[in-house]
Amino acid sequence: MESASPDLFTARLESAASRVEAMLEKILSQEARDGEIVRPDRVLSAMRYGVLNGGKRLRPFLVIETARLLDAPPEPALRIAAALECIHCYSLIHDDLPAMDDDDLRRGQPTVHIAFDEATAILAGDALLTLAFDVISSEDTALPAQLRLRLVNALSRAAGVGGMVGGQALDLMAEQDRPGEAAIVQLQAMKTGALLRYACAAGAIAAGSDDLTVAHMTRFGEIIGLAFQLADDLLDVTSDAATLGKATGKDAGRGKGTLVSLQGADAARQRLASLVAEAEDVLSPFGERAETLKRAASFIASRNR
Amino acid sequence: MESASPDLFTARLESAASRVEAMLEKILSQEARDGEIVRPDRVLSAMRYGVLNGGKRLRPFLVIETARLLDAPPEPALRIAAALECIHCYSLIHDDLPAMDDDDLRRGQPTVHIAFDEATAILAGDALLTLAFDVISSEDTALPAQLRLRLVNALSRAAGVGGMVGGQALDLMAEQDRPGEAAIVQLQAMKTGALLRYACAAGAIAAGSDDLTVAHMTRFGEIIGLAFQLADDLLDVTSDAATLGKATGKDAGRGKGTLVSLQGADAARQRLASLVAEAEDVLSPFGERAETLKRAASFIASRNR
Repeated sequence: MESASPDLFTARLESAASRVEAMLEKILSQEARDGEIVRPDRVLSAMRYGVLNGGKRLRPFLVIETARLLDAPPEPALRIAAALECIHCYSLIHDDLPAMDDDDLRRGQPTVHIAFDEATAILAGDALLTLAFDVISSEDTALPAQLRLRLVNALSRAAGVGGMVGGQALDLMAEQDRPGEAAIVQLQAMKTGALLRYACAAGAIAAGSDDLTVAHMTRFGEIIGLAFQLADDLLDVTSDAATLGKATGKDAGRGKGTLVSLQGADAARQRLASLVAEAEDVLSPFGERAETLKRAASFIASRNR
Repeated sequence: MESASPDLFTARLESAASRVEAMLEKILSQEARDGEIVRPDRVLSAMRYGVLNGGKRLRPFLVIETARLLDAPPEPALRIAAALECIHCYSLIHDDLPAMDDDDLRRGQPTVHIAFDEATAILAGDALLTLAFDVISSEDTALPAQLRLRLVNALSRAAGVGGMVGGQALDLMAEQDRPGEAAIVQLQAMKTGALLRYACAAGAIAAGSDDLTVAHMTRFGEIIGLAFQLADDLLDVTSDAATLGKATGKDAGRGKGTLVSLQGADAARQRLASLVAEAEDVLSPFGERAETLKRAASFIASRNR
């Protein structure tokens, strides 16, 4: 029987991050694959800079742990995790652009368009988005064709106009639209929620789980997503730039409503605690085996950057 | 037995364009699909503006005609054709951005970032790229999973860092790098050649053709790509903005080398004629059935915009 002390959880998080890092290193190598001609230096360097930056790898961790919970083969899960991280990192690169959020810093380092240039940042993002579909659909992701296809399709919907990209579009208009609570929840469910839901669903899909199990893990991802966003909004009002590695107070400064600004920090903290309890509840059918994922929920709710 | 007079060719080109237009209209509808939440108005409008603009639909035409030649089912081929057009249009939207080629006009109309705004143009491009993989991987593309997966994977490699995006990255550096003839050919094989090769390969893959046939059609696409680029470079020095619907003389103005500037227009025209002959030769094993595709080669070489 396995237990999950905070130390074991941290060890698992770090182990997942280092395995994902190695896989990202592999898929972002200089070597052209079948069907490619060359991978030009500058744009490949920008892709690597935007990805191989010591991120927490939270989404990959969720893929890997849900896959483990449901007995999916670990190597394909790792590839899916790396592909998802490519999508996440492309979205950060594009979101940071001057025409979007105009951020010069990310995790305390110059953003890709500062370290390189704007055109290269746009192309590096485009290429990372494209690469994610290459990695999942590849023969090297040793899963039945039907499962790989389902993983590709679910990812495209999570990341596209009806998911992450649509959420970013709504977010850009939030300054002038001043959305109410329901609209903010929808925006966040798209902008940050969609990839977190996918992360948890992907492990189940890779395991060949039935639709009910996939829906169950998607629900877990949904709760995690709500908690993640609420914690983020709280950090924006309570943390400082040095801890966070990026500017704080930006949402308020731009007049963007968040649940924290609408309801206050105390109500947000209470809601966060109840989301963690709900996430743990969703996992209860899996018993002890789900300890690490349960810990992930409280980790996400209590993170300080 | 079918013949292919210029009129029949034109009729086929126009018929393909109108069927693709209808499919694009369908996949770019307001309605959210399974796994999507909502498709926000502004970014969806920008996607539609960037795609539903009466383009020639050359790449879709090549998918549809190679599929027909090899007896692939027409409806899936049409979906693949529409997906490929989404990729082509996303690349135009991003290439036109101020940080890239900085073009205000495309086909005589304001480019997407002019008609909307820069952030929306970036997101519309991202969403179109993502949508292409959704469309091909979807159950609605009624092909065996293995074929859809192969189509996704080949497209991701054609469009990514080792293909189209990498070619654009090389092109942006061409002003300072001043590439020689071999490097220009490689750049063009990536920037414009990769999607044209894919267009012709995709019809064969959708037909479940063997590797040799896929390679054969890829070779046809490669020759078409070379002819297309050479015709484009000739137009840049010989046409005017009113005919072309975009600025001319830009390559020379920016100091970018092309094969035309290196070898002269006469040599380029001779090379173009020999490429058309070569394309026709590659198709000769298919006899009369390939007449439309043969005509496509000379159409591409002699187009005036």
